[in-house]
Amino acid sequence: MTAERPRVAVTIGDPAGIGPEIALKALAHRELYDFSIPVVFGNAKVLEANKSVAGVTSKIRAIADASEARGEAGTVDVVEVGSLSMSDFKVGEGSAVTGAFSGKCLETAIGCARKGVVRAVVQGPASKQAQNAGGYKFAGFRETANAMAGCDDTILITLGKVYNLTRVTTHVPLSDVPRLCSRQAVLRVIQLTHKGMKAVGYERPRIGVAGLNPHCGEGGLMGREEIEQIIPAIEDARAEGIVALGPYPGDTVFLNMKAGEFDVIISMYHDHGNACIKLAEFGTLFNLLAGAPFPILTVHHGTAFDIAGKGLAGETNLLYALYIAAGHKVPA
Amino acid sequence: MTAERPRVAVTIGDPAGIGPEIALKALAHRELYDFSIPVVFGNAKVLEANKSVAGVTSKIRAIADASEARGEAGTVDVVEVGSLSMSDFKVGEGSAVTGAFSGKCLETAIGCARKGVVRAVVQGPASKQAQNAGGYKFAGFRETANAMAGCDDTILITLGKVYNLTRVTTHVPLSDVPRLCSRQAVLRVIQLTHKGMKAVGYERPRIGVAGLNPHCGEGGLMGREEIEQIIPAIEDARAEGIVALGPYPGDTVFLNMKAGEFDVIISMYHDHGNACIKLAEFGTLFNLLAGAPFPILTVHHGTAFDIAGKGLAGETNLLYALYIAAGHKVPA
Repeated sequence: MTAERPRVAVTIGDPAGIGPEIALKALAHRELYDFSIPVVFGNAKVLEANKSVAGVTSKIRAIADASEARGEAGTVDVVEVGSLSMSDFKVGEGSAVTGAFSGKCLETAIGCARKGVVRAVVQGPASKQAQNAGGYKFAGFRETANAMAGCDDTILITLGKVYNLTRVTTHVPLSDVPRLCSRQAVLRVIQLTHKGMKAVGYERPRIGVAGLNPHCGEGGLMGREEIEQIIPAIEDARAEGIVALGPYPGDTVFLNMKAGEFDVIISMYHDHGNACIKLAEFGTLFNLLAGAPFPILTVHHGTAFDIAGKGLAGETNLLYALYIAAGHKVPA
Repeated sequence: MTAERPRVAVTIGDPAGIGPEIALKALAHRELYDFSIPVVFGNAKVLEANKSVAGVTSKIRAIADASEARGEAGTVDVVEVGSLSMSDFKVGEGSAVTGAFSGKCLETAIGCARKGVVRAVVQGPASKQAQNAGGYKFAGFRETANAMAGCDDTILITLGKVYNLTRVTTHVPLSDVPRLCSRQAVLRVIQLTHKGMKAVGYERPRIGVAGLNPHCGEGGLMGREEIEQIIPAIEDARAEGIVALGPYPGDTVFLNMKAGEFDVIISMYHDHGNACIKLAEFGTLFNLLAGAPFPILTVHHGTAFDIAGKGLAGETNLLYALYIAAGHKVPA
């Protein structure tokens, strides 16, 4: 059976945050070992120190290479990424040291995936500020992972228990959004969404595209972007064999997905889709880098420095990312 | 005790829709009579015909004037609005006849409120198309009720079990939204929201104002409307003694409200707020005309002609509107 289980890398994220604690909690879910061989990228001493925090009794086993991981429930296999001890940092405080370490964990794990030793990579909660201070000078997770994986045409898909979401625009003024939702831009996001969903097991993902204007513009009465850009982009995608559906009115497209009409929503802008998924399932969301050569995921939340070391952090988010990374469905 | 209970008018909406059925179902909730005297505006014969559909055994009592209503659980007091019999229309089909009747019900009920005979008016599900065909030629509920109540500076507040919402813009192209969210427009909506929430029992409503741009523009990096228009409007409102809070990032403002930080959200545009409330509580929403001289409410759903007469319609939406119309909190 072992041969059939894919190896999945999971980094501890920032060692000063909740990452080590939730990694231990997630890997205490024995069912993970039924369908995957989890391999932690981090540091055995940090994990040992977090066992009492996490309330687990797992054995921590340092290994030199991910290929040595055995996937035995009760034993956490950890690839040592450089040297680090608990005295090098203060729990609850990100620094250049912790950021350099979390960056190195991701880099090493992605390197293993590039060599085919692991199937997918999941990053635990990391601090962008600390990673920048530690020498990983990127704008965010997408840019960091792109550089490490050697790709560039990617977008983030946010995955949840019920809702999956991509966006055509993100961190831009709302007044720029209509112009940026061009036929070409919408088509690119449909294509990348298709690719990303396939990478995590959807053979023919059904993609529901939201409109830009209220009621999708009502035939041009309240905006013409649907007619001139979005519908043509959907038709372009269909011509490529992609199951692109819509456009659907923005105020009810999440109800369509709740009813099972498609597998992922494409929203035109930040505060439409993000507001809905955060409201519907805060705590069960994680991000997938769509367009990368293998699945690269990260939790959707931060390092939670304020509760680090207190045993209060929940592992659900990371656990679900591990399910998906192994090509397994999240439990209903 | 009777003297202390306010009279609340409820219209049957379109007699060919689910309105008569859900009015009977709602008025079968005996607790309503503990804190209000409900008075139906409609037609006794239509209600009699709907008793078996609704599965209730209430006694239907025709009265000539709302002041005659007794508020006894088990007896539905109905003010006869003109003459109508079941043979004048076909269940499930809106027409000029049914639209004229539902318009007349609302007009009569609002007339009673203007004379002080009822405290508030709740309209059952009506058809805009049928009302227009029947001679009530208005763009929508707000315009119809404005004309009947003799007011004009109003907005709709959508009320739910958990979330309450108003919008600065509604049915306009997204590209017009930034320009329309002026300091003056935002202030007006804050003022009307304040007035409307007070009318349904919030002494000092806490109003959470959402931003327009992602992350509220991050200090101007992603749009300057927060700095130039929205924050000044919030400050103007505070100078008038209104509890205006924010601006809050659009993607998390509903989580702030869920956490109890305020009583109502002001969203800048249609698909932001509407998407969230429909996702969170479809089926428990209704609208309040804020700025009117007395509470005028309407259910948030349509006439559901396709399921009329089948006993399938739920009354929760209308029931909650009746609670609020009586100045009573919706049960948790």
